[in-house]
Amino acid sequence: MASAVNPPRGMRDFLPADKARRERVLGVIRSTYTRHGFDEIETPVVEESSRLHSGLGGDNEKLAFGVLKRGLTTDDLRTATEVLDLADLGLRFDLTVPLARFYASHQSELPSVFRAIQIAPVWRAERPQKGRYRQFMQCDIDIIGEAGVLAEMELIAATLDTLGALGISGCSIRINDRRLLASMLEVLGFPVASHSAVLITIDKLDKLGIDGVIAELRDRAYPAEPVDALHVFLTRPQTMEMLPFGEAAIRTALPEGIGAVAVPGGGTADDAIADLVALAEALGGSVGSSAASPALVFDPFLVRGMGYYTGTIFEIAHPDFAYSLGGGGRYDGMIGRFLGTEVPAVGFSIGFERLVDLVDLGTDSASDGAALVYDQSVSPATLAALKSALVAEGTRVRLERRAKNARGQFDALLEAGFSRVATVTESTHSAADLEFRTLG
Amino acid sequence: MASAVNPPRGMRDFLPADKARRERVLGVIRSTYTRHGFDEIETPVVEESSRLHSGLGGDNEKLAFGVLKRGLTTDDLRTATEVLDLADLGLRFDLTVPLARFYASHQSELPSVFRAIQIAPVWRAERPQKGRYRQFMQCDIDIIGEAGVLAEMELIAATLDTLGALGISGCSIRINDRRLLASMLEVLGFPVASHSAVLITIDKLDKLGIDGVIAELRDRAYPAEPVDALHVFLTRPQTMEMLPFGEAAIRTALPEGIGAVAVPGGGTADDAIADLVALAEALGGSVGSSAASPALVFDPFLVRGMGYYTGTIFEIAHPDFAYSLGGGGRYDGMIGRFLGTEVPAVGFSIGFERLVDLVDLGTDSASDGAALVYDQSVSPATLAALKSALVAEGTRVRLERRAKNARGQFDALLEAGFSRVATVTESTHSAADLEFRTLG
Repeated sequence: MASAVNPPRGMRDFLPADKARRERVLGVIRSTYTRHGFDEIETPVVEESSRLHSGLGGDNEKLAFGVLKRGLTTDDLRTATEVLDLADLGLRFDLTVPLARFYASHQSELPSVFRAIQIAPVWRAERPQKGRYRQFMQCDIDIIGEAGVLAEMELIAATLDTLGALGISGCSIRINDRRLLASMLEVLGFPVASHSAVLITIDKLDKLGIDGVIAELRDRAYPAEPVDALHVFLTRPQTMEMLPFGEAAIRTALPEGIGAVAVPGGGTADDAIADLVALAEALGGSVGSSAASPALVFDPFLVRGMGYYTGTIFEIAHPDFAYSLGGGGRYDGMIGRFLGTEVPAVGFSIGFERLVDLVDLGTDSASDGAALVYDQSVSPATLAALKSALVAEGTRVRLERRAKNARGQFDALLEAGFSRVATVTESTHSAADLEFRTLG
Repeated sequence: MASAVNPPRGMRDFLPADKARRERVLGVIRSTYTRHGFDEIETPVVEESSRLHSGLGGDNEKLAFGVLKRGLTTDDLRTATEVLDLADLGLRFDLTVPLARFYASHQSELPSVFRAIQIAPVWRAERPQKGRYRQFMQCDIDIIGEAGVLAEMELIAATLDTLGALGISGCSIRINDRRLLASMLEVLGFPVASHSAVLITIDKLDKLGIDGVIAELRDRAYPAEPVDALHVFLTRPQTMEMLPFGEAAIRTALPEGIGAVAVPGGGTADDAIADLVALAEALGGSVGSSAASPALVFDPFLVRGMGYYTGTIFEIAHPDFAYSLGGGGRYDGMIGRFLGTEVPAVGFSIGFERLVDLVDLGTDSASDGAALVYDQSVSPATLAALKSALVAEGTRVRLERRAKNARGQFDALLEAGFSRVATVTESTHSAADLEFRTLG
């Protein structure tokens, strides 16, 4: 029977075993990112509504929880023209808008190339469903102030290293560039004004398949010619072949004649290709040849939903999951928005909530503890002295009154991480009198 | 000049150095509490409004930030009779109300004596002022299901051990019992109905002094007799003498004839005294005689604000601070409120935000890193390979383009925790070519 008292809808409590497991995984992520030269920062969980609703958050803005202004009266309710007027703050729905605000607040105190770690919860008022929560952890790394592919290399290498440290195998990292998507659509004949809408449909390729995507584009009444051209291109044998990430893969997977097409932000598609080739070389040297290393692939149809990406985009795929385990990209126009200048930036966000279910870090032997099971008649002073002596030696100690069901009690202690147990009776006077036996 | 872009009013960003420092202190607190047999849990940052406003939070309820219901229309604003009707959730203002809700949700999954750690932020819409924030960390430990002083002993011992691990000296722990406060007021002649109000004034003894407290009570038009009796009692030479915590101190500091007075919850003041004596004995064995150990003192005028305390209460005092560094007590009526049963409970909350300023854990030599300062002409592939090789050895690595002002760059690197630096030029081919020098 479900308990009548639950956490708020779509949100979770974490009991000791789950909490410990999550903290251990976060600890590995944090320490790997730190080793890669990133620095952790923290911002408040709320930001001003005007910043959350500034257009940087895309569709997530609609999912933001608003926080009521203080000191409102019922008169204010009568005269408000919009519900959101009542909320001057909101819970953050991602860590990127807060990072842009943080950078604007502190630029002068930060290094010219700033590598940020943010490990923190975000909130979205999504319809609760399996595996989707209204409060969940995000683990982001971002590099601000570096325009070259060195930044992408550092992010991807740090993420691959983290996946390795967590013992997750079988992932692939799909890489693309928004500039190439734009060039491709242009070569195929889609008018520039239609690009964002067409990309939303192409983004569904995994879900709808080629025929589904083409059907949806026809339904939307785009001109027949570019849709036909896209269909021909998608069904070329070499388009869906995933070559190892490198110049051959990139050139093979793109339409002919794309190189000279001008791209948003300046330059041509050839510049974007050159960047990806440089990134492939850099990652080749960094990732090495370990069989456990995730595959790096160029995916010319990788879109990623958010509107703010301007260059490289990447996503971690795992065969066990229909959704990606994380992703990111370059978003040069965004970080500087609150500053009023353009600042190059690229970020990678790990999908912690999906990842944590894949990870088995084993038992934490360092925290293995000792239980003192005591008779009712033993004085608190004796128990205090015994516990204190063991704790002083660095042992994790739990006091438990002796239960009638000794086996049940020992099983529960073992599960809680106390594998040694000693009984304390009136004749126990010091820690030297304790006789420990090992459970399990 | 202040930046135009700030975090929300009364809230703070944490830059890398501050964030690292805070996390290190939290790590010490967490590991010490864990060693003492406590288990960490986590609850969502929001709770249902009806629970936050159920009377368990005292004055803090008024400071709760409300979270707007989803899907409200302007019509809902017109018809709402109260502003709070628009908020179905709120940000927690403490960790105790969420703990009571958590316990009600999960009692069957928890041990019969449950020792909880909660290390998490809370939010209060206080008027921002120096040292007071609208989002701040709380570090709570609570023991649920243990009615005896063993629980108090474990909490206080764990807290003292934590203060020791943080290198904080000069603290004292003041201890009292709500039952003795009630008995004392009764012996002095205050009517029971006046007790809570009189205690609010007595709580200001540190701030107002004896004369101030007596003056305020006279202003409030309490009967002259008990106020005179309190005045006489407060000015006894032995009242303000702080003896080491134990039976002598307790008996000396209380009015004569208090022992037989019946107390709320059953029994007499003598039972409360016996509990404190047992606690003093238990702590005597546990805390030991280290000169650095905080002093334990019985303080018959310690009140603590919250209305929910039912037994022992305690507070950490430090000579550098007018406010306490933490406190807690027994609140047997509260944890079971959402369950509809009474469950014994006692908790201790460390005032992390004040504590963190007192702590100097020194530099973290384990995280000391190496910087690679590179010329513009070095390829990303070379940098990737060098960084990767060093990271694989466990070194924390930062890549930095060579700056014109080498001294400024080295100083900044040292401050960011990179004490070794090597220059990378076009003639650097592998990690073996790197020549590190030590900064500072």
